[in-house]
Amino acid sequence: MTALDDRSVQPTVTTGPIMGSAKVYLSVADPHGGPPLRVPQRRVGLSDGTHIDLYDTSGPYTDTGAAIDVHAGLPALRADWIGARAPVNGADTQLAHARAGTITPEMRYAAAREGMDPETVRAEVAAGRAVIPANRRHPESEPMVIGKRFLVKVNANIGNSAVTSSVAEEVEKMVWATRWGADTIMDLSTGRRIHETREWILRNSPVPVGTVPIYQALEKVNGDPARLSWEVYRDTVIEQAEQGVDYMTVHAGVLLRYVPLTARRVTGIVSRGGSIMAAWCLAHHEESFLYTRFEELCDIFRAYDITFSLGDGLRPGSIADANDEAQFAELRTLGELTAIARTKDVQVMVEGPGHVPLHKIAENVRLEEELCGEAPFYTLGPLATDIAPGYDHITSAIGAAQIAWHGTAMLCYVTPKEHLGLPDRDDVKTGVITYKLAAHSADLAKGHPRAQEWDDTLSKARFEFRWKDQFHLALDPETALAYHDETLPAEPAKTA
Amino acid sequence: MTALDDRSVQPTVTTGPIMGSAKVYLSVADPHGGPPLRVPQRRVGLSDGTHIDLYDTSGPYTDTGAAIDVHAGLPALRADWIGARAPVNGADTQLAHARAGTITPEMRYAAAREGMDPETVRAEVAAGRAVIPANRRHPESEPMVIGKRFLVKVNANIGNSAVTSSVAEEVEKMVWATRWGADTIMDLSTGRRIHETREWILRNSPVPVGTVPIYQALEKVNGDPARLSWEVYRDTVIEQAEQGVDYMTVHAGVLLRYVPLTARRVTGIVSRGGSIMAAWCLAHHEESFLYTRFEELCDIFRAYDITFSLGDGLRPGSIADANDEAQFAELRTLGELTAIARTKDVQVMVEGPGHVPLHKIAENVRLEEELCGEAPFYTLGPLATDIAPGYDHITSAIGAAQIAWHGTAMLCYVTPKEHLGLPDRDDVKTGVITYKLAAHSADLAKGHPRAQEWDDTLSKARFEFRWKDQFHLALDPETALAYHDETLPAEPAKTA
Repeated sequence: MTALDDRSVQPTVTTGPIMGSAKVYLSVADPHGGPPLRVPQRRVGLSDGTHIDLYDTSGPYTDTGAAIDVHAGLPALRADWIGARAPVNGADTQLAHARAGTITPEMRYAAAREGMDPETVRAEVAAGRAVIPANRRHPESEPMVIGKRFLVKVNANIGNSAVTSSVAEEVEKMVWATRWGADTIMDLSTGRRIHETREWILRNSPVPVGTVPIYQALEKVNGDPARLSWEVYRDTVIEQAEQGVDYMTVHAGVLLRYVPLTARRVTGIVSRGGSIMAAWCLAHHEESFLYTRFEELCDIFRAYDITFSLGDGLRPGSIADANDEAQFAELRTLGELTAIARTKDVQVMVEGPGHVPLHKIAENVRLEEELCGEAPFYTLGPLATDIAPGYDHITSAIGAAQIAWHGTAMLCYVTPKEHLGLPDRDDVKTGVITYKLAAHSADLAKGHPRAQEWDDTLSKARFEFRWKDQFHLALDPETALAYHDETLPAEPAKTA
Repeated sequence: MTALDDRSVQPTVTTGPIMGSAKVYLSVADPHGGPPLRVPQRRVGLSDGTHIDLYDTSGPYTDTGAAIDVHAGLPALRADWIGARAPVNGADTQLAHARAGTITPEMRYAAAREGMDPETVRAEVAAGRAVIPANRRHPESEPMVIGKRFLVKVNANIGNSAVTSSVAEEVEKMVWATRWGADTIMDLSTGRRIHETREWILRNSPVPVGTVPIYQALEKVNGDPARLSWEVYRDTVIEQAEQGVDYMTVHAGVLLRYVPLTARRVTGIVSRGGSIMAAWCLAHHEESFLYTRFEELCDIFRAYDITFSLGDGLRPGSIADANDEAQFAELRTLGELTAIARTKDVQVMVEGPGHVPLHKIAENVRLEEELCGEAPFYTLGPLATDIAPGYDHITSAIGAAQIAWHGTAMLCYVTPKEHLGLPDRDDVKTGVITYKLAAHSADLAKGHPRAQEWDDTLSKARFEFRWKDQFHLALDPETALAYHDETLPAEPAKTA
């Protein structure tokens, strides 16, 4: 019996199109004569008879023609591609194929979503400037590319805890987050049903799924960091790899000698993974096993094509600690590890802060690109100020737009509950929409070829008082409509 | 009978301190032996026995010792200063005094609020790089300074319309907005009771009040722009000047020859004042009377020490129209007008956009400073993207933080209802808090001497799990507390 056979779990997932939009599929011919790709788009039909197609992360859930059965999981879109593929030098990773000059179906699919040339995707992956997180054992996912040449992506963290939520709620949070535009999901679940929750999410997720394996490893040793070991960690990674996790955060840059650098900080070590590894290093007076065993870890990642997300365990937790010695010492080590992973054809992203004032943001991108060979940067915000708990989706969107404009490829969302509690369904939506608009602001500033068409189409509708078109073109049509109705409820006002 | 004698108007205004804070007054000695200034601060007491004093815009309403009587209005704090003052070369304006080398009580008061030297305030006002909007007939206001060397300020627009709100509601919106940090208020009321509404707001407002006189002038000619005239406009300005309006938006840069420059825009002219003046110019085939009569207008402003807010009637209404010829042509004219006003010792701010993508923001500040002699820049956002109606407080906070970091002195807030409807009380609060955090992000990036202490104090409380201190230090303690309670309601969790 698999986790999905458990009929006591009954997720109620949100289905149906976004208001005013319809799911369409672009048919993308296979140059080698295979079946064409069916690449999803959110099509917004306008009252003047035209339409605009927007990037769509929502999977089959918004397709009125799709049969959704959460106990069966999504169709294995990539199964044939994976099955038909021969490894290159023993590696069946997107990086290995890209370096060999091969454009995989995943690359063609991701390129079509971006409205870009597949060769550009291949070249960027080959150079390590982009990644396609796609575990061979997560064939349900719709391929996407993360890199500075492409649309800025948004990750949404979900995850239950024993206290506050169930497996079913987390599945719906995943569907809900991708409905509003989450490009990837990180499952940070803890507690009793961690394996089952992840299985449910993976089998039903149309987007790549990331995890932080050290969290589950810690549960296996009853929460005592000192009792962690390479063996426990390795087995956890393999367990998650087999389930299909597409990318994993690994805090391998928290070295023993860096821990004292955090002693005089205002907020010490705030990364959970960073704290765990620092505690292990101090307890054993040894270098982190994530660092000493990094090559072995690469071999596991290579076997599944899991992408590293090299964690910033020493990221600043406050404005005061931004860009300090501890943070940049770790970043240098992440650069070394990036180089090692690439020698093994393993894809790498590098995680970044956190809390950074506006004038110190650009330096983060510059250094990351210099030290880590332009590996895609994946940042948490950063918050541009610490004084607004309850509004940290906004304090961080200010920093996120700025850092994405400078080159960050993916943004980890922050919800209004950051620092205060666990996000509920409304918070997840608020966080995703806030980050989509921040990401889009950066796409505009970077001149992504498809970005401004959306703004112009909406602005034209606004100027011509085509209210319904304006709502339908909005990132969140329901909220736009609801706010308009509050003060001008009459129908004529909307069609005038 | 004055408007405030009307007992049918019964505003219920919010009083009492912000949670965890107390109003204190710094006593600032008068170097000339007069009575000391009492400068208000929001003092947050911490559980370790220390405290931090924060800039306070809320007026007597948060002072538990103050008797509030909205029918009497606030005490005339500045009456003695104004009465004792002799004009310089016929002008009793802050600019005239600053140029003469005199530090006025208003300058000392504003400097104390900023934690800065009064001479710095005087020098910045003298150079035209800062303004102190303080109509001689609004003695109730607590003086503040707007300029790039000082804390970034936030304006909140309020204003009733015949449809949706009453005089009493607008008075409470003013009190409510300043409670959460609005540094100035613009009263954009229209409709039947426009004069009375303004009187109520002015007599009860602890912050400078701005208006757009062309709105009321248009009502006097039954909404037909072609019927406007210099005489109707002038009389309206004098009516508002007598009431005590501290700064007025004047769209004197919309010249006849600039109107055709907007023809091929995606969103034409979106400024209401700009549209009115463009319509007048086209109807009469004449240059705008605001431009041709500008020197006469300066003479009126000079008599009251009203500050110009030179309106950007041709500001872009969409990403597509940002930084275009129409916008920058008007900006050059605003530069000419700034120079004229200064020859008459009249203070000037210059208004800016609107909708601007991130990569075009810095250019706006650079050009404004170059063309307008570094007059304080006062921008509406700008929105960094058009695709998120319902979230435009956030799309614009992203642009606002950026433009303020580059040198914008005051930000006009945007609420979630922007483009969709009129803001209610909750929207006003959301808009103000969002803009305060954006302004503070810029203060940090500019290195204002008092800015980072706040972040560090809150972050230290967070790191030490002093939950109550963290809430009390928040821009919005109530929301921070409420969000925390949602998932971890137990009291021990808050004091752990």
